[in-house]
Amino acid sequence: MKNSLGTSVILTLAGESHGSEICAVLDGLAPGIPVDEGFLRAQLARRRPSGVTDTARREADAYRIVSGVKEGMTTGAPLCILIPNTDVRSADYDAMQELARPSHADWAAAAKYGGFEDRCGGGHFSGRITVGIVAAGAIALCALKARGITIGTHILRCAGVEDRPFGDLPADVEALGTAAFPVLDEAAGEAMTRAIAEARAAGDSVGGVLQTAVCGFPAGVGEPWFGSVEGVLSNALFSLGGVKGVEFGAGFALAEMKGSEANDAFCLRDGAVATKTNHSGGVNGGISNGMPLLFNTAVKPTPSISLPQQSVHLRTGEIRTLEIKGRHDPAIVRRICPVVDALVAVVLCDLLALRYGTDYLKP
Amino acid sequence: MKNSLGTSVILTLAGESHGSEICAVLDGLAPGIPVDEGFLRAQLARRRPSGVTDTARREADAYRIVSGVKEGMTTGAPLCILIPNTDVRSADYDAMQELARPSHADWAAAAKYGGFEDRCGGGHFSGRITVGIVAAGAIALCALKARGITIGTHILRCAGVEDRPFGDLPADVEALGTAAFPVLDEAAGEAMTRAIAEARAAGDSVGGVLQTAVCGFPAGVGEPWFGSVEGVLSNALFSLGGVKGVEFGAGFALAEMKGSEANDAFCLRDGAVATKTNHSGGVNGGISNGMPLLFNTAVKPTPSISLPQQSVHLRTGEIRTLEIKGRHDPAIVRRICPVVDALVAVVLCDLLALRYGTDYLKP
Amino acid sequence: MKNSLGTSVILTLAGESHGSEICAVLDGLAPGIPVDEGFLRAQLARRRPSGVTDTARREADAYRIVSGVKEGMTTGAPLCILIPNTDVRSADYDAMQELARPSHADWAAAAKYGGFEDRCGGGHFSGRITVGIVAAGAIALCALKARGITIGTHILRCAGVEDRPFGDLPADVEALGTAAFPVLDEAAGEAMTRAIAEARAAGDSVGGVLQTAVCGFPAGVGEPWFGSVEGVLSNALFSLGGVKGVEFGAGFALAEMKGSEANDAFCLRDGAVATKTNHSGGVNGGISNGMPLLFNTAVKPTPSISLPQQSVHLRTGEIRTLEIKGRHDPAIVRRICPVVDALVAVVLCDLLALRYGTDYLKP
Amino acid sequence: MKNSLGTSVILTLAGESHGSEICAVLDGLAPGIPVDEGFLRAQLARRRPSGVTDTARREADAYRIVSGVKEGMTTGAPLCILIPNTDVRSADYDAMQELARPSHADWAAAAKYGGFEDRCGGGHFSGRITVGIVAAGAIALCALKARGITIGTHILRCAGVEDRPFGDLPADVEALGTAAFPVLDEAAGEAMTRAIAEARAAGDSVGGVLQTAVCGFPAGVGEPWFGSVEGVLSNALFSLGGVKGVEFGAGFALAEMKGSEANDAFCLRDGAVATKTNHSGGVNGGISNGMPLLFNTAVKPTPSISLPQQSVHLRTGEIRTLEIKGRHDPAIVRRICPVVDALVAVVLCDLLALRYGTDYLKP
Repeated sequence: MKNSLGTSVILTLAGESHGSEICAVLDGLAPGIPVDEGFLRAQLARRRPSGVTDTARREADAYRIVSGVKEGMTTGAPLCILIPNTDVRSADYDAMQELARPSHADWAAAAKYGGFEDRCGGGHFSGRITVGIVAAGAIALCALKARGITIGTHILRCAGVEDRPFGDLPADVEALGTAAFPVLDEAAGEAMTRAIAEARAAGDSVGGVLQTAVCGFPAGVGEPWFGSVEGVLSNALFSLGGVKGVEFGAGFALAEMKGSEANDAFCLRDGAVATKTNHSGGVNGGISNGMPLLFNTAVKPTPSISLPQQSVHLRTGEIRTLEIKGRHDPAIVRRICPVVDALVAVVLCDLLALRYGTDYLKP
Repeated sequence: MKNSLGTSVILTLAGESHGSEICAVLDGLAPGIPVDEGFLRAQLARRRPSGVTDTARREADAYRIVSGVKEGMTTGAPLCILIPNTDVRSADYDAMQELARPSHADWAAAAKYGGFEDRCGGGHFSGRITVGIVAAGAIALCALKARGITIGTHILRCAGVEDRPFGDLPADVEALGTAAFPVLDEAAGEAMTRAIAEARAAGDSVGGVLQTAVCGFPAGVGEPWFGSVEGVLSNALFSLGGVKGVEFGAGFALAEMKGSEANDAFCLRDGAVATKTNHSGGVNGGISNGMPLLFNTAVKPTPSISLPQQSVHLRTGEIRTLEIKGRHDPAIVRRICPVVDALVAVVLCDLLALRYGTDYLKP
Repeated sequence: MKNSLGTSVILTLAGESHGSEICAVLDGLAPGIPVDEGFLRAQLARRRPSGVTDTARREADAYRIVSGVKEGMTTGAPLCILIPNTDVRSADYDAMQELARPSHADWAAAAKYGGFEDRCGGGHFSGRITVGIVAAGAIALCALKARGITIGTHILRCAGVEDRPFGDLPADVEALGTAAFPVLDEAAGEAMTRAIAEARAAGDSVGGVLQTAVCGFPAGVGEPWFGSVEGVLSNALFSLGGVKGVEFGAGFALAEMKGSEANDAFCLRDGAVATKTNHSGGVNGGISNGMPLLFNTAVKPTPSISLPQQSVHLRTGEIRTLEIKGRHDPAIVRRICPVVDALVAVVLCDLLALRYGTDYLKP
Repeated sequence: MKNSLGTSVILTLAGESHGSEICAVLDGLAPGIPVDEGFLRAQLARRRPSGVTDTARREADAYRIVSGVKEGMTTGAPLCILIPNTDVRSADYDAMQELARPSHADWAAAAKYGGFEDRCGGGHFSGRITVGIVAAGAIALCALKARGITIGTHILRCAGVEDRPFGDLPADVEALGTAAFPVLDEAAGEAMTRAIAEARAAGDSVGGVLQTAVCGFPAGVGEPWFGSVEGVLSNALFSLGGVKGVEFGAGFALAEMKGSEANDAFCLRDGAVATKTNHSGGVNGGISNGMPLLFNTAVKPTPSISLPQQSVHLRTGEIRTLEIKGRHDPAIVRRICPVVDALVAVVLCDLLALRYGTDYLKP
């Protein structure tokens, strides 16, 4: 589906890093959902670069809703949001545009688009495009919250520093809502911030692992084979530049366990059927089981670093040394958290609409 | 897409563990592809239980091609394959059918299907369904091989034993072709086999991590956002029961690296542009870059173990102790390898047909 | 979607005219729907050739449900039905297999499949494939009927003879249920039967126009642009060989009316809002309006006639005279009616599941 | 797919009649296609109201390409076009917004969107949205033309006046390119214009039938069952408000013919295999046969007429008399022609990309 995601609730993205606007179209959302513009702005602010851990590029993110909303509520028609690009400095990129940046999309994109692709600031591959996901996803997040479904993502690991994993749900997710740097343990966050600043000072970058929890998601959603909750979410997550791994529940650690350790024994909790552990991450056989959805996302270090690297000239095929100028994030782990929340919200709205109909999220 | 996967090349699955047949329909494959039935049988044999590491269920896997093949070649019409279920003993399951097996699909399925689902032997959630994937995928694998694209999967890790990772490609992939137990280091395989036998003896089970390599896949295939090579493959892989994690290239280990360590520097190899390392797993920005596709899949231990477990009664909601009888695999890491190869082949045929047209794989 | 149709409820077809079986997989139907095998057999009987108006080919249509049904009810898993081909006489076709039959798919198919296609009896293009639609659709029809939605198709016009159009709904639809030759005016049916027999005697064939009504379909289903009720139904109808036109409500006749004549004025009927006329065919802006869905389907005369015709040799490109032997229908207008009903039922189940969720048709 | 159309080349629409802009995103077009902005403007001008036959609403259609084009050529990234709405007078509509206009989408939309829908000027159901189709389609038309594929639509019939049908192809299609009022016979066009003006003067409206031809389209494109050229085109055409019938080749007239009259006999023309007649409209068995694609589209009279009509109050359900004010087209047959051309171009680009790969239209 290229730049569109979903079946009943469909997100379409367009725009380039240095174009006039980023465009997101969210189609299929139920009518009557209140659009909380304060929350929308807050989510955009969470994604915006700020302080030492991010790129020096500054964007006002003054979005504009072109369609699909009337008197503060969704109409059911496709919701089109435009976010202008303002702080664009293509000159920074000119010198290096013919050299493929290692572990960036440049070389693969040239093979696909034959040199016609827009390379300014990463063009259509830029992380800038995710501003559209955050804007559209904010409305999906509101709609889910009104049905008691909350989503939160924190930095579980970055530059050798560990945050504590989600424990008390949904309280931990609520706590994240207001955090400037999304961690559960403030001290860990400070240590991460220092480590990111060090990487930047060294002209280098770092990655990390995110942990996401979805609370209140009903059991019985998703499909047994193609269309599993895990498959649909992972497809969405891998769309984000820098994501190189996704695991549900205990994930790769499950591979080291015995069945007797890995299996989630059933129990009663507050009178309802639950499981003692949640190694399955809330999904069995592709279908939600009523426990919180839990998954981790591996984010590689930002490929744009200042240190000299071995590159290739896109037209001549010569190997050349590249020193990247321009403004870049020494780590995207902080800024990607609201993007993950937004994207997950869109995907879950789609799954819910497929299961319970298009009016499910109508208040 | 529920039980169908793909856009231009589409695989549809139907069948239950204890039904008369498993049915796979593979639609959209180019006409003129030779159907190598010897290879098809060999792939089915690789998936078939045998020896100490697998279930005692025995299936002849006497498949029947109902449509889409004429005079040994694909016609371009949908290829329908039926594989009869012969060794079916539902009695083994009767006693426990009302108790949800921990970390199995039973509880989630009841929430979705309201008790109408077939629970015999796991019904439509059974690993038995994968026999259809293997049969259909065998033809896709043949077609890819004729274009110089080879796929191989080995058990990288199982029960604490490590195989050596892929090194010399495509030679390592070719070597796997004939291995009875898909590992690169024979000694590791023997140690794994012993560990699996021990788990079985203890009424327990083990999981593992698989590593897959795709050699010869062209650069420039896949989509920048939704429809990335990683996203499409991970969606397919998570359809397999037991898969709880997918990572590309260095995957989760990338999260611990600096950018300067993680980035794949360009170089010339045999006169062609390549990268020195392949931490990206052959994909950047969602698009193949011409290096081998490399990814790992985490497989949890088989949830069906003989040890007593805390279960829940599906109708009454009571917590009860369950002791699973019946025949089960103490580990599926061996048998799932040909399933992964087959599924990956189907997905890649789809991506190639979308990129280069439906005749791309026509000889 | 090639040989698959639908989004939430998905029909997949496989098989060839002279293969062993026709296969239909219906995925996404709600669990708990009773499968009325008597009705299924009756629908297959309606499609079966009989008497003077159809081909001499005789098929028992002894279907077999391979999956998706347990104890007489759908389980929610994909429902796979196989219908064996028994009366296969490929010899009839051998002589002419290299000559493209005028207005048949032969020439177009050769351009698509490069000569690898199966041509026996029309291969995958044969009307025989529709037996799978009828079998799968019978279950969809049952499920709809249980929700008060009924579907009926009659031959409005054939060989110059006119049936009376639908008037008293849903009574007219119910009346059709048992008719051997689906017309509202018995005398018209007899005149049509005579005209078809005359065409057969002359080595020729005739076409006709079908009228379909859907009663009890709720308002508010369908999409404003792509995904309109009209668009989705027409896409399905044009899949049937021989269909060359589809019109909703007054259709092409609307083009001759003034707006003041064409518009459906609102009124109250039995206390409910309705329209005085139904020139819109129950759809406005792509969305159902609560009035019966009404549409006509133009069916061309069967292209397989005995009279000599100018053909082309598929390999040499020579123009040659062709005299078609074999068994053919002098008209398919009678046999296609249950196929239309079945296909429409599948499409409407899909639209309802998308709108109201996958459990909508669960009793 | 709601407001998105296509599989490999995908058009997404957003916007409302009285919103700030109409948005069209065209994704999947090959890179390197020259964007002829003069032609784009010319196509927008063809759609724009002018003279006696159309609404008095005046729009400058000053489009803006937000993404997907660089240095005058497509980049391969999604092409986003915005067209501002300037001449918006919602006051005209205020009085009647609670009354459902007969044969308009109002009533059906209220059933779907529960009253949250935007009704100003028809909201998302307005013909205004088609400006996005025309803008996006202009680029598709250019790309097709460069490959020798031309598309033309004329008014075959309107208000009792007949144009001559397509005869000399592709010359007739080329001739239409510059016509202000798209007819092949100028005198017929003048008579139609007079008839439309009379209808307007009487506070009434008229409809008509369009005929479209596609020349140079290769044989072997399309799918045998679901995904036929006819099905895919008809699904797109029925998305247009006012379209109530679609027929291919001789269409409904085929229903009156004998097989011996209807069948298209093969012949050689300029050394190539062709057919003497083209009753099939260029499609057999769902697949293009190399002859021009030919189809007719029935357009109902504009439902917005000034004459008093029986309406229903959307909230109270009362039957009330409605007199529509505002500016409306007495006929859309002229303005819809470039919309049909544009939409058909998008659909055919999709079919070609699916068949021959995404680079097929790359120059």
